[in-house]
Amino acid sequence: MSDTYELIYWPGLPGRGEFVRLAFEESGTAYADLGLTHPRAEPVLEQTDSKNLGDATSPPPLAPPILRHTDANGSSLLISQTSNILLYIGARLGLAPSPGEPGSFIINGLVLTALDGLCNETHDTHHPVATGKYYDDQKEVAKLRAQDYRENRLPKFLGYFERVLKGDASGDGPWLYGGNLTVADLVLFQARGPICAWFHFAYRLTYIQCIDGNKHAFPKAMARLEKSGEYKSVFALWRAVQTRPRIKSYLESDRRQSYGDGIYRHYPELDG
Amino acid sequence: MSDTYELIYWPGLPGRGEFVRLAFEESGTAYADLGLTHPRAEPVLEQTDSKNLGDATSPPPLAPPILRHTDANGSSLLISQTSNILLYIGARLGLAPSPGEPGSFIINGLVLTALDGLCNETHDTHHPVATGKYYDDQKEVAKLRAQDYRENRLPKFLGYFERVLKGDASGDGPWLYGGNLTVADLVLFQARGPICAWFHFAYRLTYIQCIDGNKHAFPKAMARLEKSGEYKSVFALWRAVQTRPRIKSYLESDRRQSYGDGIYRHYPELDG
Repeated sequence: MSDTYELIYWPGLPGRGEFVRLAFEESGTAYADLGLTHPRAEPVLEQTDSKNLGDATSPPPLAPPILRHTDANGSSLLISQTSNILLYIGARLGLAPSPGEPGSFIINGLVLTALDGLCNETHDTHHPVATGKYYDDQKEVAKLRAQDYRENRLPKFLGYFERVLKGDASGDGPWLYGGNLTVADLVLFQARGPICAWFHFAYRLTYIQCIDGNKHAFPKAMARLEKSGEYKSVFALWRAVQTRPRIKSYLESDRRQSYGDGIYRHYPELDG
Repeated sequence: MSDTYELIYWPGLPGRGEFVRLAFEESGTAYADLGLTHPRAEPVLEQTDSKNLGDATSPPPLAPPILRHTDANGSSLLISQTSNILLYIGARLGLAPSPGEPGSFIINGLVLTALDGLCNETHDTHHPVATGKYYDDQKEVAKLRAQDYRENRLPKFLGYFERVLKGDASGDGPWLYGGNLTVADLVLFQARGPICAWFHFAYRLTYIQCIDGNKHAFPKAMARLEKSGEYKSVFALWRAVQTRPRIKSYLESDRRQSYGDGIYRHYPELDG
């Protein structure tokens, strides 16, 4: 028996599960994507059921993505929270230093910052009042929040990662830290597509995700930011990830899902 | 020369720095709180300056809290993001298993979930449109968002932690995981005060912080939730932290700052 990895996530959208999928895909690691095999989301609903108290090893998770890792001895660990899953699998998949090494904290910090600004805040542009309510019921506030996001928050975060890429700690080449591709680069890559694509396709989300995700969600704003020339390294990183052989082949495969009504949504009225 | 820990955070408010302070205080570890010694925030501004590119080891941080740890050999590591700092110091201070151990991921997941629901979302109740704008300019939207927070999000997160505390993985006693006090318990404790206190003192914030913070921010809503009896274990955890000898003495000291205009604000109109 060898290690098995099961990703428990909603079916039908890339969402926060995509950050985890990219790590498995880039490293060529086998994993089961339960969203693809369970279109009615039974594995998610079982975990998030209000009667679930977890087991002796793992408390219940609040929300997906959730990873179940079963090792060669058959013992399982269930962990949740996107950055936490990436911390867990990063070193195992050769995409981060071992937990406890200085670099592991640096990469975890970069992952958290990319998720804050280019995933969580992107989500909140279309749900600024209540996650549980429809977009149409908060559309007017969403316009205000999206304007602030386009004009202030998105440039702030892109400018931040541009600085990280220019700093000495990033090392040589296109990557964020130490000259090697890590999970942090995959997160920054994924955050781009939906933001850009947001701007491209009216009410349809198609692109790649944090940078990729944002290209999907805010195509006009992202095109303007790219054209400004102020974030050259960030956009170069995106292209460097996109052309990795395994990533390229994944993006062209059926395993890559289209954006739909997830975190990264393209509402033209929010793209300014 | 021995290890030194410097907390770089805004002066004049507990904020996200408080989660870090509580770990140092509970473990009786010496640390320099640069917010107290630099009332004009020079250490924060130096780190977040748009010209700062970091150094060979650490990229620039986006925002505080930031921890600088200098070891006995004089080499320094600078890390940011609240949960990341707690992951870094948790095992060093005896408040978490070593990074890489299964329990370290469980605790990191609990910390992230408490910060999501009881710190970040609490903050967004008073700044639902734009972090960079005044509260008064987004007050009407804040009322809607706070209502959703009180009625849906806050009970959801308290209910979640109640389940965690009832589950087998929490072990015996009042703590979230494995029968021992960890950084996750300190985060959950801190998140309570401001939310409750929000409800207590008109436009003044005074209480403790995630649970403590929420007691400050939403005193009426929190009192109602406590009275419901549905979250007994969560409130018992809060009392168990509050009466730890070192925490008690810290809360009564000058080092504990009052809430002011930070994450946890008490606006009576947001308390329903």
